[in-house]
Amino acid sequence: MIRLGIIGFGNISTTLLTLLKDVLEDPLEHLTIVCRPEYESQVNQIMREDFNDVALENSITSNIETLINNKPNLVVECAGHDAVTEHIPQVLSAGFDTVVASVGALADAALADSLYDAAHKGKARLIIPAGAIGGVDLLASLKKHGKLEVSYRGIKPPAAWSGTLADKLMNLDHLSEETVIFSGSAREAASNYPKNANVAATIALAGAGFEATKTELVADPNATGNIHEYSVNCPLAHYTLRVESLPSSGNSKTSVTTVYSIMREITNRIGPIVI
Amino acid sequence: MIRLGIIGFGNISTTLLTLLKDVLEDPLEHLTIVCRPEYESQVNQIMREDFNDVALENSITSNIETLINNKPNLVVECAGHDAVTEHIPQVLSAGFDTVVASVGALADAALADSLYDAAHKGKARLIIPAGAIGGVDLLASLKKHGKLEVSYRGIKPPAAWSGTLADKLMNLDHLSEETVIFSGSAREAASNYPKNANVAATIALAGAGFEATKTELVADPNATGNIHEYSVNCPLAHYTLRVESLPSSGNSKTSVTTVYSIMREITNRIGPIVI
Repeated sequence: MIRLGIIGFGNISTTLLTLLKDVLEDPLEHLTIVCRPEYESQVNQIMREDFNDVALENSITSNIETLINNKPNLVVECAGHDAVTEHIPQVLSAGFDTVVASVGALADAALADSLYDAAHKGKARLIIPAGAIGGVDLLASLKKHGKLEVSYRGIKPPAAWSGTLADKLMNLDHLSEETVIFSGSAREAASNYPKNANVAATIALAGAGFEATKTELVADPNATGNIHEYSVNCPLAHYTLRVESLPSSGNSKTSVTTVYSIMREITNRIGPIVI
Repeated sequence: MIRLGIIGFGNISTTLLTLLKDVLEDPLEHLTIVCRPEYESQVNQIMREDFNDVALENSITSNIETLINNKPNLVVECAGHDAVTEHIPQVLSAGFDTVVASVGALADAALADSLYDAAHKGKARLIIPAGAIGGVDLLASLKKHGKLEVSYRGIKPPAAWSGTLADKLMNLDHLSEETVIFSGSAREAASNYPKNANVAATIALAGAGFEATKTELVADPNATGNIHEYSVNCPLAHYTLRVESLPSSGNSKTSVTTVYSIMREITNRIGPIVI
């Protein structure tokens, strides 16, 4: 039995709730959803209609104090970078372990510091999920030894880069081959492509840090899904990982592996097996 | 501050203690080492000479009751399959979260069931570390969706297979090229090559299970270290991971990445960041 708090009610939250309905053997003891005030009645309605059986008791609120008063065993942020800044320091310093989906927000060094301080103060954990990729387990292990060289490439179809800085650099509609749209550090990638920074940020935090993590972002007209590949060299081991996310029915925009990685963090808290 | 229990005092334990000396900001509050009765005085001496500063207080014992009475926040098993059978059900049912390094022991379905039952009864966690490989985070996430196809290859130099069943099947000293010494399920691999079963077992437990995880074991005269590669296909994503462990100074036999993955489980319990 677990008391869960979720901050945000977009694609990630609703996909997560749908998965939890399927996976949970017993409903949650309590679920708090934090959303913006203007969406409260709409969220209330969706929760009643679609997710009434996820938890024995629900609480929908726009007030972060309500989440804290409900004493969740675990909080999940899936509301975007602004919500990390606005709410997570308070949640952590109040002592609640928090899974942060918007990992790219931690590219802001001042925000990252304030999160670490808050977690320290509250004796709470800031939990970084593997997100859209994997191998974060190995990378974070090797980090303890140090001397890491890490190179990451994020490859997406040209349309996935529309509305970003790449639009100004090239005509995305007319690319005939794989084209590097950005090459630099994970810090610069997060700054220039904030909406595509979560994977680079996760790799940076787990491994060599934001400055030393070499990052390439690529538009590839032949890519059928989002591809993340990275390689790690250090004195203990080297490894390469390449993940291709296949198109998911219903919502091609949400990175479904991200949602599954958050669900893993939740089920690892509920079940007797942690893996 | 953490109270730690370690079962076993072989290569993994001593390497782990050496790393903890370097990594811990503050010493552990308490450390219990469980070893065989005949080694107690020797372990006491090594602890005094080499690891006196890892913890404020040490307790060396051959009695598992002593470990339990010391109320560790976390127990780490690194003593081999027999120790898993002998001690871990008792530790879990007493309510203590336990990291199991000898994951291959769980290929024994009856033992695995007794561990799950014990963890359930004690409201404790059986923690499976990523061990020598990585990507267990992604694999365990995708498992929630199901329909996984998983193929694993473990490649080692011929000498690493001496003393195993492979010795009877071929002349390991005279291999001139990469040679498959075993092909079958992860369950069969664990049964036929019990000392090399940890990685196959971890992949099986995280993903498609012991029967469905295709496993190949390979002797390669050109391999300079141990190589683990696997690929996963499912409707959400596919990925490949290849890890090559580089020779480690001091002890080429211990899979050092395994020790680092155990240390990650410990530091994720101590620090404010879980990654």
